[in-house]
Amino acid sequence: MTADALPPRTVRSAPDRLLAVLAAFDHAHPALCLTDISRRAGLTLTTTHRLVGALTEWGALERDADGLYHVGLRLWEIAALAPRGLALRQVALPYLEDLYEATHENVQLAVRDGGEVVYVEWLSGRSAVGVHIRVGARWPLHATGVGLALLAHSGQPFQEAYCAGPLTAFTPYTIADPARLRRELAEVRRSGVAVSSRQITEDTLSVAAPVHGRDGGVTAAVSIVVPHATAQAAVLVPAVRLAARGISRALGWRPEAR
Amino acid sequence: MTADALPPRTVRSAPDRLLAVLAAFDHAHPALCLTDISRRAGLTLTTTHRLVGALTEWGALERDADGLYHVGLRLWEIAALAPRGLALRQVALPYLEDLYEATHENVQLAVRDGGEVVYVEWLSGRSAVGVHIRVGARWPLHATGVGLALLAHSGQPFQEAYCAGPLTAFTPYTIADPARLRRELAEVRRSGVAVSSRQITEDTLSVAAPVHGRDGGVTAAVSIVVPHATAQAAVLVPAVRLAARGISRALGWRPEAR
Repeated sequence: MTADALPPRTVRSAPDRLLAVLAAFDHAHPALCLTDISRRAGLTLTTTHRLVGALTEWGALERDADGLYHVGLRLWEIAALAPRGLALRQVALPYLEDLYEATHENVQLAVRDGGEVVYVEWLSGRSAVGVHIRVGARWPLHATGVGLALLAHSGQPFQEAYCAGPLTAFTPYTIADPARLRRELAEVRRSGVAVSSRQITEDTLSVAAPVHGRDGGVTAAVSIVVPHATAQAAVLVPAVRLAARGISRALGWRPEAR
Repeated sequence: MTADALPPRTVRSAPDRLLAVLAAFDHAHPALCLTDISRRAGLTLTTTHRLVGALTEWGALERDADGLYHVGLRLWEIAALAPRGLALRQVALPYLEDLYEATHENVQLAVRDGGEVVYVEWLSGRSAVGVHIRVGARWPLHATGVGLALLAHSGQPFQEAYCAGPLTAFTPYTIADPARLRRELAEVRRSGVAVSSRQITEDTLSVAAPVHGRDGGVTAAVSIVVPHATAQAAVLVPAVRLAARGISRALGWRPEAR
């Protein structure tokens, strides 16, 4: 039994077991054999075989020519209805495309889930700087531009608890000090944009701005990621703010009515 | 009981019941209350309450401020791993963006699922022609450019069965005659592109080209949709073919090695 295996539990509900099969798949494990699924889900091979059969018949999983299982098209179609996933992306896409076209850099849209950002869109030209994110990827809030923008506009108790740490450092430049993070968040609220410099990798910089929903609350953040060496943050700020305001308006935000 | 309700069935497996809850959500019903879910899934309210609770706790569903349930971010994250969904889209996106930027028209990527196309990507500028498709949407193969491209390169027995009909007509221009569809498919194979004119709505035209996978088989199709009145198909053909070849190469297709 390897480190990532769960011990088989005897008392688990039927939904719990089925969802454990789906949760066996992640970015590091997009294709699995029955034995892998059984081990990662903490289920017997017999139970796994039965559940994978039901999921495959329904279309939530697909089996390839090598006998490996993948997430299926039918699950993807239903998941496309998630308001904070593809549905948000559909509204935002024209504005993200405009931002991409104006800059030809990596453009992202992200939402907050607990203490992490989840990227729901990422436009990347073949010439843009290589970055270590992709759709569905997660990063801690304090280390990314979108994360800082989302954290700065979350509830005060949540912000305090988050700032108290622990704050993981990915590079020597990551904001891992609570007092510095609090100052940074105040600056994000003051300026309306978040600049994250060399925090995830030492060669990139991101500029992010908050996206407001119909009720005025911040529901997402849009950002651009560029090479640190040649970045001119001042040039990128207006473009990112414009994209964020466009998406906010498309979501029903009316600042002038407030 | 309305027309879309299923009668409660007593003998259903646990996976079947849970998947029925997920399948209650579709494009026409992205937000549902418990009673709606119960009715659409054909389950008792007690069972629905229990299953929705498990799915919500896990993150497959989310409950909004109005008490309605939506598809959740966690399900979307797992579904993003689908090789024929977002994973294919990630590889294709730079080429689709190039095509969008070169034309500023609606750009689509689709795969075949049985007798239908499923759109896995759709780039649409704010100025592009309005079309009745979106990510996750389905249309019959014979009525769309991508569908004709995919059908023309599917197995001969499948093509024959599909051409035998019935073939639904959406406009007076839809190819609903088996003999005409067979001729059209031969022309698609000969020319390497599919042109679908006024088949879904009378004011649009699409130009599509097949995308090849590593093994040489056609795994997807890329298309552009433009207003019929001003469309110059001859101008669009090279751009669509170029995008399709770019995506094919990115997927590992090596025509020169064949």
